[in-house]
Amino acid sequence: MSRGCITLVTDFGTSDPYVAAMKGVALSINPELTLVDVSHDVGPHDIAEAAYVLRGVLHYYPAGTIHVVVVDPGVGSERRILAAQVDDQIVLAPDNGFLDLLLDGEQPGRLVNVTNTEYFHHPVSLTFHGRDVFGPVAAHLTLGVDLCEMGHDVDEYVKAEAGMPHRTDEGIEGAVIHVDRFGNLVTNIPKELLRELGDEVRVQVGGEEIVGVDRIYADVPEGHLLALIGSTGMLELSANQVSAADVLGVGRRTTVQVVRDE
Amino acid sequence: MSRGCITLVTDFGTSDPYVAAMKGVALSINPELTLVDVSHDVGPHDIAEAAYVLRGVLHYYPAGTIHVVVVDPGVGSERRILAAQVDDQIVLAPDNGFLDLLLDGEQPGRLVNVTNTEYFHHPVSLTFHGRDVFGPVAAHLTLGVDLCEMGHDVDEYVKAEAGMPHRTDEGIEGAVIHVDRFGNLVTNIPKELLRELGDEVRVQVGGEEIVGVDRIYADVPEGHLLALIGSTGMLELSANQVSAADVLGVGRRTTVQVVRDE
Amino acid sequence: MSRGCITLVTDFGTSDPYVAAMKGVALSINPELTLVDVSHDVGPHDIAEAAYVLRGVLHYYPAGTIHVVVVDPGVGSERRILAAQVDDQIVLAPDNGFLDLLLDGEQPGRLVNVTNTEYFHHPVSLTFHGRDVFGPVAAHLTLGVDLCEMGHDVDEYVKAEAGMPHRTDEGIEGAVIHVDRFGNLVTNIPKELLRELGDEVRVQVGGEEIVGVDRIYADVPEGHLLALIGSTGMLELSANQVSAADVLGVGRRTTVQVVRDE
Repeated sequence: MSRGCITLVTDFGTSDPYVAAMKGVALSINPELTLVDVSHDVGPHDIAEAAYVLRGVLHYYPAGTIHVVVVDPGVGSERRILAAQVDDQIVLAPDNGFLDLLLDGEQPGRLVNVTNTEYFHHPVSLTFHGRDVFGPVAAHLTLGVDLCEMGHDVDEYVKAEAGMPHRTDEGIEGAVIHVDRFGNLVTNIPKELLRELGDEVRVQVGGEEIVGVDRIYADVPEGHLLALIGSTGMLELSANQVSAADVLGVGRRTTVQVVRDE
Repeated sequence: MSRGCITLVTDFGTSDPYVAAMKGVALSINPELTLVDVSHDVGPHDIAEAAYVLRGVLHYYPAGTIHVVVVDPGVGSERRILAAQVDDQIVLAPDNGFLDLLLDGEQPGRLVNVTNTEYFHHPVSLTFHGRDVFGPVAAHLTLGVDLCEMGHDVDEYVKAEAGMPHRTDEGIEGAVIHVDRFGNLVTNIPKELLRELGDEVRVQVGGEEIVGVDRIYADVPEGHLLALIGSTGMLELSANQVSAADVLGVGRRTTVQVVRDE
Repeated sequence: MSRGCITLVTDFGTSDPYVAAMKGVALSINPELTLVDVSHDVGPHDIAEAAYVLRGVLHYYPAGTIHVVVVDPGVGSERRILAAQVDDQIVLAPDNGFLDLLLDGEQPGRLVNVTNTEYFHHPVSLTFHGRDVFGPVAAHLTLGVDLCEMGHDVDEYVKAEAGMPHRTDEGIEGAVIHVDRFGNLVTNIPKELLRELGDEVRVQVGGEEIVGVDRIYADVPEGHLLALIGSTGMLELSANQVSAADVLGVGRRTTVQVVRDE
């Protein structure tokens, strides 16, 4: 039997003791488990970026991996904590719209409201459920505790209030959800939605306009902007050899318009 | 039997090869062990911040975990390296005042001066004891080598010259020891000391004054400062929705005064 | 038998999902393996810095460790991927001059062109060989698959076009290849080359001149520059108590001249 694997997505950063406290609680329950940091640099409370980051790794992990997401502005309130079976992976996250963004509104294979305090770390603090709930529940799941032991099945998760792209009269309105290390701007607009507009589009962002999508870097001179479909299937805005974020002077949450080029 | 667990607190950062060199030496001795990064972003030589960070994780780890702290301005000098039994955990650190800050002056269950070069990595460099002493000694401890094999018991550790709060005529003088990712300012003033002043206090920092402690964020308008007791039991200064470090224009080592509000 | 160990050097940063995707693919092949991050903060496409970072850890790891280097501007082109046996370690890297810088032109014990797609993750993308080639090949190697299964032996690797120091009429011209957390400037000039100039040298960098090498910090007043041989055997430029990078206003890739002091 495998030792069990937990991945972590948080907005905790790596200078504070928070992440290591979560790991200590989990290792105290299952000392054999493998812990992988996906990212702790998600923008504070930015569930759209957390969904983007997890989507980039989810299906590459061994079956039964527990993916823990602690981007949780509602900690201490009545928000639920959900465990979702997504194909052969399990995602543990606050019920704050994150799952809606991760799953694009689709239904997971199974959805459990995690309420069984037997699997929590006590005393349970008001402000640090990463350490007191997410970490220990994930560790127990790697030991083979069944989802049904964690609480009861539910039918629905909270819908995301923002962070989804939407159709407009002229095309699609979305937003930048992540700026990667090279200054590429990843948007929340998937290629499937983009295709509905047809082949001829213009992308408007930061006062600039880019004509056409899916060109390769070599198509434009150094320093010029281009739009393309990135490795996770989302519309990305880049600049040849330089940072698109710097060229445009924009960042996370900037609005992006795609319009038909008529 | 468990595989053994080592946590690491250093001021090495994560862009240099230093941390990974330590890990390689440890894994060469015990290839089964689990390594956890607590923080490598401690301010250079800042033992007060290192103590804060380790205190946030220490008691959440499996019994027998070795916590290695390499914040060591005295490397290469005659300073000792101590292994301290703290409840069911072991802390391995230079004898430079760090243990005093970690333990608030209390005596550990056991205290050993680590001198047995048989457990070091040779040749021992003058400047990199993390790799040549701390890493290999910790790895041997995870294999079950007894503390008494590492050197000889001692009674005392070096007292911290600074970093402790102290009583003044008007109240307490302390300092900011850590700025977290959200710009909250963690001080070295524990809630027990604060309580000695009674319920009515004012906190002075960066030319500003905050009236009262232990209020919640919702008590003050957005952008306003407040004082509260954080999750590790220390006085923290925050601002509602924004960074207190930015609002006050202060950072690590800034003086904080708490005075009775008469 | 050991569980297997993989170390990672990339220019991916730690905010993007790229590193964790690589790890997921590797863990899906060998769930028991130990993964160690050396650095993901290598300058984009900077193979000289990657070589410096790996050289600092290579020989401290257990025999049979696989060191994966993904600093790969040529991804998607015809560049080869090589597995090199270096003493009892294996290095897996793109054939872009990196191995020349790592090995200082010397021949590895064995050199294999990795072409066997049976060990790749499919479909193999054009842009993310870290996830689709390097990760899975490394994981299979930790399981005991022999190098000869991965492709065929070759004799030569690509020579580095830049990044090596060279002799000039007056002495040696090199460059800064890494700025460490404390602002020390690590150059690509090894102590062996430096010795060829004799004991009396001057170092010219950023419009300043430093007389003599291998002095210790205490030899110069606070804030003053000095040149010394660092823990990895390279010429380093430092400043007593402060950042040499700040004092000089220079960084990675800055030219460094060493001339005889006549």
